[in-house]
Amino acid sequence: MAATLPADSVGRVSPQSVRFDEPLLLECGRELPGYTLAYETYGVLNADATNAILVCHALSGNHHAAGYDSEDARKPGWWEACIGPGKPLDTNRFFVVCSNNLGGCHGSTGPTSEDPATGQAYGADFPLVTVGDWVRTQARLADHLGIERWAAVAGGSLGGMQALQWAIDLPERIGHAIVIAAAPRLSAQNIAFNEVARQAIRSDPDFHEGRYALTGDRPRTGLMLARMLGHITYLSEAAMGEKFGRERRDERGAFGFHYGVEFEVESYLRHQGESFVDRFDANTYLLMTKALDYFDPAAATGGDLSKALARTTAPFFVASFTSDWRFPPAASHEIVRALLDINKRVSYAEIEADHGHDAFLMPVPRYQEVFGAYMNRVAEEVGA
Amino acid sequence: MAATLPADSVGRVSPQSVRFDEPLLLECGRELPGYTLAYETYGVLNADATNAILVCHALSGNHHAAGYDSEDARKPGWWEACIGPGKPLDTNRFFVVCSNNLGGCHGSTGPTSEDPATGQAYGADFPLVTVGDWVRTQARLADHLGIERWAAVAGGSLGGMQALQWAIDLPERIGHAIVIAAAPRLSAQNIAFNEVARQAIRSDPDFHEGRYALTGDRPRTGLMLARMLGHITYLSEAAMGEKFGRERRDERGAFGFHYGVEFEVESYLRHQGESFVDRFDANTYLLMTKALDYFDPAAATGGDLSKALARTTAPFFVASFTSDWRFPPAASHEIVRALLDINKRVSYAEIEADHGHDAFLMPVPRYQEVFGAYMNRVAEEVGA
Repeated sequence: MAATLPADSVGRVSPQSVRFDEPLLLECGRELPGYTLAYETYGVLNADATNAILVCHALSGNHHAAGYDSEDARKPGWWEACIGPGKPLDTNRFFVVCSNNLGGCHGSTGPTSEDPATGQAYGADFPLVTVGDWVRTQARLADHLGIERWAAVAGGSLGGMQALQWAIDLPERIGHAIVIAAAPRLSAQNIAFNEVARQAIRSDPDFHEGRYALTGDRPRTGLMLARMLGHITYLSEAAMGEKFGRERRDERGAFGFHYGVEFEVESYLRHQGESFVDRFDANTYLLMTKALDYFDPAAATGGDLSKALARTTAPFFVASFTSDWRFPPAASHEIVRALLDINKRVSYAEIEADHGHDAFLMPVPRYQEVFGAYMNRVAEEVGA
Repeated sequence: MAATLPADSVGRVSPQSVRFDEPLLLECGRELPGYTLAYETYGVLNADATNAILVCHALSGNHHAAGYDSEDARKPGWWEACIGPGKPLDTNRFFVVCSNNLGGCHGSTGPTSEDPATGQAYGADFPLVTVGDWVRTQARLADHLGIERWAAVAGGSLGGMQALQWAIDLPERIGHAIVIAAAPRLSAQNIAFNEVARQAIRSDPDFHEGRYALTGDRPRTGLMLARMLGHITYLSEAAMGEKFGRERRDERGAFGFHYGVEFEVESYLRHQGESFVDRFDANTYLLMTKALDYFDPAAATGGDLSKALARTTAPFFVASFTSDWRFPPAASHEIVRALLDINKRVSYAEIEADHGHDAFLMPVPRYQEVFGAYMNRVAEEVGA
């Protein structure tokens, strides 16, 4: 943790958790007898509980969205660019809540948790959960916190999909839907990348059909490959080119004619892959990719997204980034068009940014500006 | 093989091979005592040997570029769209030669060949070869065939890079350089994808540091992952979307909530991966990706591609495809610009095609038309 915390950070934060003992019937048909959600909150809930924002995380995220969660934390939470005093999700005005999704590996019940039926880690026996399942667990968290209605539900990528699903499933409990760098469904190419990642994990001999916790092994190699691949899709070609180009570790020397690290981009990817496996669970990674693949709210209405959105009442803020090829602007356009076609309120911002999909995590000035302006109106609306 | 062969096919073909016993000093500094090249030829070499075209293959290709190489072949060679009677590389006029690259696994000396020093397969001990090394081995093949100068050297992707290198290294021996869907060097993103593929192969426990031939194992899983990943980059997002969308094996059913095949695109990728491992060697795949990573003719001239191309005398035909995101039109533009800047002759075609990088292998009418028109002029020039 920096000796002096930045003035626009929420500062030192601590996770909380809540146990729900009421059984939860999941979309897959299985029932969880109970579950725990880990979460963090930033800012203060006002007396009427009208200023609460739910932030939803993406594939590899968790409840630690802002601030510093330990004395020696070198990095703040994943959405530090957008959560904090004076930032778009202004903690001087809003009470911001972020939970680790059910199925996660950072404190919420998931594959690494103990299955009460066996006394051992769930592992591969943890049920596949959906975006809809997450909405229902997050609604219980809202109940627990005394929040009847979120001023907004916000997220980027898979987090944006949760905001979209909230607007559809529980329109009475969401004031605004903030859908950033997301898509109404994955493309074939998105699914293909997920499938390669899954195959990498599942074919790792240390995966043991997902029951690796019993063996002491972990499918480190497979998870590393999945993460390396993911990273390529999070950055734009231009961003990668600018950041690494063809720079080599040993710029002066000739090529090594070996398979060790030569190019800087190789070093970066290996480092990203290796550090990820220390902090993430492979079964969680697998189920998160499946939740992504399955997400398709328009499927229930014969592919008609407008029909799927007909029940929504929340105005939408939709944003995309020009260099995002994972969830490109065209995917956001589809959401915007579907809303406009049925006269729903939607604000759309297409942000010029070179960072690719990762831009939604970054302090891109124009992004912070338009997102902030929208949230300012939300704050005024709820008297925050 | 189809009961009746198409009239515009070269028909039944047979591979040939030639052994070179003169040692070959490679760019990596190691020397091969001798080597074999497997090759095929289509058409007839004219009396002056002026009508010969060298075709260079890409990463997973080989010498079988056209026609049917067995009675029961269900598919013709990889460039059937462009080689044959009346096609751009018109075998009624040209004598077309395609060899399996040194380091390959389909008849030319490579990792699966016996190392004379040990009596065992080279495996990982096979030296890493470069595009420049290939040019020199192909020049020896030209000598062997009595071809002093190719009317043209042609290729797509990594094959196009070989044509470019030919124009630089042996300007007196190449009439025209046909550079299709290629690039003057890989981008950081390209290298990143290659690195993930390599890590997938090299971390497969059956890889045994590349000495798997001694064990009877083969790194099937790693090679399958590499190929699945490759396939994603060969197709455009649009082509994948059109071909597979979100179609599922069981369209009527609910989601399976399992990790088996559900989406058609998953089935396609797995099939592509599985069928590839039966016909390709992992060590060859590795060294081909390294040859790609290393290719950068402008590196020797301080990054100035025009300077690197200064010695070329061959007019260029450069073509790219609008939906190719592996080697996008911008990469071809760079070659064209570098040639124009030094007043070299170049024709450039940017072909509208949805197929992505794979378009260079496909019978895209506009592509065949402009490529054919160019080759028609080449034929007239050499009296073919």
